[in-house]
Amino acid sequence: MSPNSWRGEVFPGGIRLAAVHQPTRHRLPGTMRATMSSYDALLTRLADVDALLAASGIMEWDQQTYMPPGGAEARAAHVGILSRLAHETMVADETRALLEKARAEAEPGSDQAALIRVAQRDLDLRTKIPASLVEEKSRLASIAHEEWVRARKESNFKGFQGTLERMFEIVRQEAEYLGYKDHIYDALLDQYEEGATAADCRRMFEDIKAPIVALVKDIVENGKTIDDHLLYGEWSVDRQREFTERIVAKVGYDMKRGRQDTAPHPFCTGWSVGDIRITTRYKDYIGSAIFGSLHEAGHAMYEQGSPSEWDRTPLAGGVSLGVHESQSRLWENIVGRSEAFWRYFLHELEALFPQLAAFSPHTFYRAVNKVEPSFIRVEADEVTYNLHIMVRFEIECDVLTGAMKVADMPDAWNEKYRQYLGITPRKDAEGCLQDVHWSMGSIGYFPTYSMGNLLSYQIWHTLQRDIPNTDELIGKGEFAPIHGWLKEKIYSQGRKYTPKELIQRVTGKPMSAEDYLEGLTAKYRHLYAI
Amino acid sequence: MSPNSWRGEVFPGGIRLAAVHQPTRHRLPGTMRATMSSYDALLTRLADVDALLAASGIMEWDQQTYMPPGGAEARAAHVGILSRLAHETMVADETRALLEKARAEAEPGSDQAALIRVAQRDLDLRTKIPASLVEEKSRLASIAHEEWVRARKESNFKGFQGTLERMFEIVRQEAEYLGYKDHIYDALLDQYEEGATAADCRRMFEDIKAPIVALVKDIVENGKTIDDHLLYGEWSVDRQREFTERIVAKVGYDMKRGRQDTAPHPFCTGWSVGDIRITTRYKDYIGSAIFGSLHEAGHAMYEQGSPSEWDRTPLAGGVSLGVHESQSRLWENIVGRSEAFWRYFLHELEALFPQLAAFSPHTFYRAVNKVEPSFIRVEADEVTYNLHIMVRFEIECDVLTGAMKVADMPDAWNEKYRQYLGITPRKDAEGCLQDVHWSMGSIGYFPTYSMGNLLSYQIWHTLQRDIPNTDELIGKGEFAPIHGWLKEKIYSQGRKYTPKELIQRVTGKPMSAEDYLEGLTAKYRHLYAI
Repeated sequence: MSPNSWRGEVFPGGIRLAAVHQPTRHRLPGTMRATMSSYDALLTRLADVDALLAASGIMEWDQQTYMPPGGAEARAAHVGILSRLAHETMVADETRALLEKARAEAEPGSDQAALIRVAQRDLDLRTKIPASLVEEKSRLASIAHEEWVRARKESNFKGFQGTLERMFEIVRQEAEYLGYKDHIYDALLDQYEEGATAADCRRMFEDIKAPIVALVKDIVENGKTIDDHLLYGEWSVDRQREFTERIVAKVGYDMKRGRQDTAPHPFCTGWSVGDIRITTRYKDYIGSAIFGSLHEAGHAMYEQGSPSEWDRTPLAGGVSLGVHESQSRLWENIVGRSEAFWRYFLHELEALFPQLAAFSPHTFYRAVNKVEPSFIRVEADEVTYNLHIMVRFEIECDVLTGAMKVADMPDAWNEKYRQYLGITPRKDAEGCLQDVHWSMGSIGYFPTYSMGNLLSYQIWHTLQRDIPNTDELIGKGEFAPIHGWLKEKIYSQGRKYTPKELIQRVTGKPMSAEDYLEGLTAKYRHLYAI
Repeated sequence: MSPNSWRGEVFPGGIRLAAVHQPTRHRLPGTMRATMSSYDALLTRLADVDALLAASGIMEWDQQTYMPPGGAEARAAHVGILSRLAHETMVADETRALLEKARAEAEPGSDQAALIRVAQRDLDLRTKIPASLVEEKSRLASIAHEEWVRARKESNFKGFQGTLERMFEIVRQEAEYLGYKDHIYDALLDQYEEGATAADCRRMFEDIKAPIVALVKDIVENGKTIDDHLLYGEWSVDRQREFTERIVAKVGYDMKRGRQDTAPHPFCTGWSVGDIRITTRYKDYIGSAIFGSLHEAGHAMYEQGSPSEWDRTPLAGGVSLGVHESQSRLWENIVGRSEAFWRYFLHELEALFPQLAAFSPHTFYRAVNKVEPSFIRVEADEVTYNLHIMVRFEIECDVLTGAMKVADMPDAWNEKYRQYLGITPRKDAEGCLQDVHWSMGSIGYFPTYSMGNLLSYQIWHTLQRDIPNTDELIGKGEFAPIHGWLKEKIYSQGRKYTPKELIQRVTGKPMSAEDYLEGLTAKYRHLYAI
């Protein structure tokens, strides 16, 4: 129904009045179309897709932040329709034709050529999987989500097993439609991380497995646990909001082109370079809001850093989930969990929360870096985090290839936790039922988190070659050189290069575990004096 | 470009990932389409239009409430595209064909028939005016708005005159395309108030002119001014919010299907029966928030009262601007500015703002009903309000017919204010340059405000036949019988009947000034003891 509103009065009957009052921009007359280059015509077409996706985006943001409960049913219908319209507009023959014409005219190596390549990839990913399979997956995902919620609540894997088997079967079919050379996993992972393969993941986990398992073991057996109980308590939401908004603005998140709201699960979203928003949450652990905000601000600064001339085109935004995660983790962990950061910010935090005055920057730094093997991935510390991911990757691979049955997942899961983290889940709710992803059919997605972790250190290592005094700068609250470097090297590149090309260009080498292991080991061996 | 977000991580590259993660609902397969009735196919089509308008609606709401300043440029582009897509979908040949087929199958008098009638009207209003003229008006409106802002600031009518002349010329052409029988004004007014004519307006203003001018004169000459200075001051925004949310919920605005935010100009908007939102503003006059909130809640309760089975169809929502305004004014003025209302609510307000303790319900009631001729319509009291509208209506008519030149507007305006309100604007900024409407080309719109005022009393008069003890109920804070009556008679009728049919059905007679004059005169003669 959509009544339109206007200064103090409602305009009812949206359709009718929209004809009169809205700044309607009609289809361009034929003559104007004729004078457009194919490239401009393509941009116009893609701008329609972008507007439809932006509409879904803001509806989803609103749903997580301000929507009254009564709005849920219509919201689902609206988002469903807008997604379909975006899809139809994107995959239409006209879009394909425009892409082909524009490609013929584009200068190789130009931004135009890059945009065409990215748009073609988006289109291919949308069309390789037949609509009927997408439909089937969507239907199964609705059922699977409800079943998963119940199964997790009751810690009853059997109640989810049949549906999960069907979901893996559908995802297997998807992978066949998407196509791959070496491993079925490659097809799935590529959707999230262009060009990344199962072999890349295996290498990554091979490289980090032994050193990290050893590091965790040393920390646990060392026996010197860090006391962080002061980080738990009741904290004024207003003051947490004030502090988190201050730190994200200070590190470089532009609040004139963004804002922070509250949501059950922190996220970053946006629909133009001028409007990239984050959310956070306020819990009894004060680090929840602080590091949640910094993490999302990392994502957001990446999105805000796209060139404004690429705004509302497929070239804007982050290039892949792994590279995106490298930016959130860099700001959250490497900057935000550094001692220098707290040398600068702790007195501000203590001014708002005098109960933290017992901490020195050093003790606070130690507290927020406490390592403790635990069952739940989303609560994991920096050291153990990748072990959680490794478990999921190994299981996904084995189930996809048929080497493992879905029915055997719980046992395999628990055994791997015992081996890698030295702990065994007491029930599947804190084991293989904890993540929402599989119920959605997001299989092949988890490794991008670990890639983000590795890349954050690899990029930081490169940055320190140009800016050797990062500690000094952070300790003085001077983040502009760091933000500026990242913006120049990564943010401003948008999606122009593939993730692998970008990483090579920025760091001079492909993704590797070297800098990550060096950085992590140095930090935690020092912190735990081992 | 629209990254999709997910629990703590951002999904970059909206198009690509949307293919995988969004609950995409694909076009129905041909076979399913074939089994749909024409009516259902029409509903599906109109649901697309509705979703596109809903998207614009939420984007506009966000723009007024939470959008960071950096989002403005992309927002304008997005809303422009979505409006165009809604327009194209609505006016497409397919929609017309579906309407015709569905009409042939619909039972006369049924809800289906009503929906088809309303959708056809919406379609006709969108297509009668050629796209080139809509385009021209849209372009002129952008320029006109800027010129108007400047002209008002400098109080320089000459700087706006030429553009305003062109705007009237375009609107004259629009009227010719829309078509009319008797008066050019009819074509324009009908867009906002189906079936209403210049003759209706003339009769309305003829009926109220002498009695209201006389009433105002008596009040002014009576010399007993009401002291309302206690209503001005500094008021905690949080407490104003708390109070206004309490009163709108109490009168029947369902906050589970709505919410109140802050905006520069209060408005009501929504995109489903489950999500109808209001905004208010907090000023040094405490009545600003209170009556702003009640006014918008009146609009919102009307929208919330549509049958849920009509949700997201053209039948949902208010039937016309006049009837809509009758509901906002009824709750704002007849209920909210009654002595009984403050017998119930004043102690709650005083608990939040002890500085108001000097008021008794009676003195507070007098203060919020103070009558004082003034220059600015939006600040006008209930008694003088329609005189402001009358000035605008008379000038619009005369300029449209050519009886008055745009150049002569300022003098005509000032002379009419002198005659009707007994005051003469000192400059055009507080005279004929005060309203935004003409710069937008919203000509033929103002009389719906006066219709709303008349109808509010006419409907209230009818309501009191069924519920004679409204004063007693309001004084006890029991609003359910009143809300229930309005919901049954008006809200739940949506757009099923024309405004004129609805008014006849509800009140047993066409719109007339009788109940309005009786109610207003009784209230204010008693209040001012004249």
